[in-house]
Amino acid sequence: MTPYRELSREQLQAMKAELEKQFEEVKAKGLNLDMSRGKPSKEQLNLAMGMMEELKSTDKLKCEAGIDCRNYGLLEGIPEARRLLGEMTEVVPEHIIIFGNSSLSVMFDTVSRSMTHGVCGSTPWCKLDKVKFLCPVPGYDRHFRITEYFGIEMINVPMTPAGPDMDIVEELVSKDPAIKGIWCVPKYSNPQGITYSAETVKRFARLKPAAEDFRIYWDNAYCIHHLYEDHQDILLEILEECEKAGNPDMVYKFISTSKVSFPGSGIAAVAASPKNLAEIKKHMAVQTIGHDKINQLRHVRFFGGIVGMHKHMKKHAELLRPKFEAVENTLEREISGAEIGTWTKPKGGYFISFDSMDGCAKAIVAKAAEAGVKMTEAGATYPYGIDPHDSNIRIAPSFPTLDELQLATEIFVLSVKLVSIDKLLEEK
Amino acid sequence: MTPYRELSREQLQAMKAELEKQFEEVKAKGLNLDMSRGKPSKEQLNLAMGMMEELKSTDKLKCEAGIDCRNYGLLEGIPEARRLLGEMTEVVPEHIIIFGNSSLSVMFDTVSRSMTHGVCGSTPWCKLDKVKFLCPVPGYDRHFRITEYFGIEMINVPMTPAGPDMDIVEELVSKDPAIKGIWCVPKYSNPQGITYSAETVKRFARLKPAAEDFRIYWDNAYCIHHLYEDHQDILLEILEECEKAGNPDMVYKFISTSKVSFPGSGIAAVAASPKNLAEIKKHMAVQTIGHDKINQLRHVRFFGGIVGMHKHMKKHAELLRPKFEAVENTLEREISGAEIGTWTKPKGGYFISFDSMDGCAKAIVAKAAEAGVKMTEAGATYPYGIDPHDSNIRIAPSFPTLDELQLATEIFVLSVKLVSIDKLLEEK
Repeated sequence: MTPYRELSREQLQAMKAELEKQFEEVKAKGLNLDMSRGKPSKEQLNLAMGMMEELKSTDKLKCEAGIDCRNYGLLEGIPEARRLLGEMTEVVPEHIIIFGNSSLSVMFDTVSRSMTHGVCGSTPWCKLDKVKFLCPVPGYDRHFRITEYFGIEMINVPMTPAGPDMDIVEELVSKDPAIKGIWCVPKYSNPQGITYSAETVKRFARLKPAAEDFRIYWDNAYCIHHLYEDHQDILLEILEECEKAGNPDMVYKFISTSKVSFPGSGIAAVAASPKNLAEIKKHMAVQTIGHDKINQLRHVRFFGGIVGMHKHMKKHAELLRPKFEAVENTLEREISGAEIGTWTKPKGGYFISFDSMDGCAKAIVAKAAEAGVKMTEAGATYPYGIDPHDSNIRIAPSFPTLDELQLATEIFVLSVKLVSIDKLLEEK
Repeated sequence: MTPYRELSREQLQAMKAELEKQFEEVKAKGLNLDMSRGKPSKEQLNLAMGMMEELKSTDKLKCEAGIDCRNYGLLEGIPEARRLLGEMTEVVPEHIIIFGNSSLSVMFDTVSRSMTHGVCGSTPWCKLDKVKFLCPVPGYDRHFRITEYFGIEMINVPMTPAGPDMDIVEELVSKDPAIKGIWCVPKYSNPQGITYSAETVKRFARLKPAAEDFRIYWDNAYCIHHLYEDHQDILLEILEECEKAGNPDMVYKFISTSKVSFPGSGIAAVAASPKNLAEIKKHMAVQTIGHDKINQLRHVRFFGGIVGMHKHMKKHAELLRPKFEAVENTLEREISGAEIGTWTKPKGGYFISFDSMDGCAKAIVAKAAEAGVKMTEAGATYPYGIDPHDSNIRIAPSFPTLDELQLATEIFVLSVKLVSIDKLLEEK
């Protein structure tokens, strides 16, 4: 395919006319599709319906600690859930605490606690003039909204194919004591699907932060969410790396089963050093009498153990893989060589990240919406919703049916082409 | 019975010798019973087992809003859960938001949010030199722990049989702008089982706080938790009273199904004015993607509606009533007239409040523990764990079997008598 940039004004205008006709045709199909979030499909949700069949007998409701899961008690979660989610994120049960249904709210609470009570004895952040977080970009909008809500200044750090640019991270973290944290999705990152390299993880573990209360917010949301059995990314276990590097307390690991069992009805967890866990427990002991242990037990009974959970994730992969490939194939066929966009080909997670020509992302998302395809708002993958290049768009292929997704991708591609041509015509 | 105080030194010593013998006998029975918290019994938990049978079919998982409860969405809770919990606390669905499994954590979050973000635009409390809360005493220890954790100064307000002493509340609230809240359990209060009178509720609604961000924390934990069908306390609905009095935003109402379905696996809610709810939602939208809607739907399907829920509560009452009466009868038989203690006879809720002679509560609780009965720590019903009279003890009759409870009450009564005699001997 000839790069669009090399086409003449007349060629572009002829193309535009043809594409506009096509766009009106797909628009007429009246699609109304919300692709804005990484939501599992109905078929994926059905995979875990067996969970509803668990726990019917009153004599099977005690956990391994001998406590009736229907009653108060066990602040840290039931032992078998700590083992299962520990295995999910490669730590021993003693290093993990089970929470409620949302890892996002655990991250929120962690920032909130640092604001009001500091971190392991440090000055509460609300007493400081300035608190800053590093934000690898593009990244997860919900992370950025938490730090924005608390008035924390966010600093963009560019992503590379091996993770955040560690030269920049090391430089900033070692020099500025106002930098208290960094948001990371280290495996199959949101939105690019990048997994941090072993070298990146080791460099994280060896950071020498100027702030004693600096913490890495390691949101391992997609730790077992592979798309391929034979091509999986591998992520070094950071708690161990931090310990080896003499920084045992520098990281909080967050996980959940939101995209394993049911979004909003899964279980979340934090893995951390004994010192950090002790502080978290002190806070929890005031905040709640305990989380939903029935749901913890339901998860353990349904999956049986980590082997069962991995088998379950293969069923998710079988449903997700064709969708990712459909989007990638259409992009390849329709755009490759046109030099109007690049995209990632992740081996896991929930997103494909698309980068348009500079200054086109907002217009593309608006154009697709015209034909009934709601995508994640352009800019959302950057702090404050500001993408300095206006180029990044997050594609979430999981929720639609394959047919809907094919049509949505067509609409997306037409939108990319039309907006890009307009941009090129402006420049000519 | 002759008041112990009127007995001679010799009579008391003779009694003591006899009681010590009895104490050794019951101690030898090797009871090991935790009565420290208001935990439902196994039989109560069994009442809700039908809940585990709900939601098995994939075609019954949409809520009234047409959304699949297994997926993300509906931050405020599903419409039918808002209706059910709204009816539980006598407000329309539009005035209530459904949360996770714990109303305590909603109260914690409410204080935490006020610390970091203020209340409807007021200065964040963390920026103020001093923040104070009024604490009707005796009260709920977990409330006091929240305010203590955030460094909020707590001021005791005595309870009367009609609720907190409103003369004091009005005086303090109207004069001191540092007073930002008051903890209330308005119905079948913890630990006394007192229900605030209509006059008390109206006086609350008519408060003229010096602080614009003053809020009443109305923890209606026991709103439908009656012990008797024919003798129920009635509580005025405070949101409406506040509105009538021109103070629509002055109250947050908290409820949960912890002692209706399963403690730790129920659903919690906040009812408040539109202005307060809007602020809560702004916070929630950052904190979480949503709460557990499957559990919301499970509750609605199991109870059917408020009528079903009231029927369910009658079954709880049938299990709880004999336990309350067993404790009350033993106290009546063994202590009445001895003037070594008084106790409440609640018509609902989870606790009986016992007041010993001054300076005896800690020793009584320690004595009972010697014979294997763990009660709520003496002092726990007061801020900072300091009961100025060292006299209040919370009795939680729900969890033990009736047999265990009989024995535990015997042990308790023996402990009261022995400690009281020691105290009187000291004084003679």
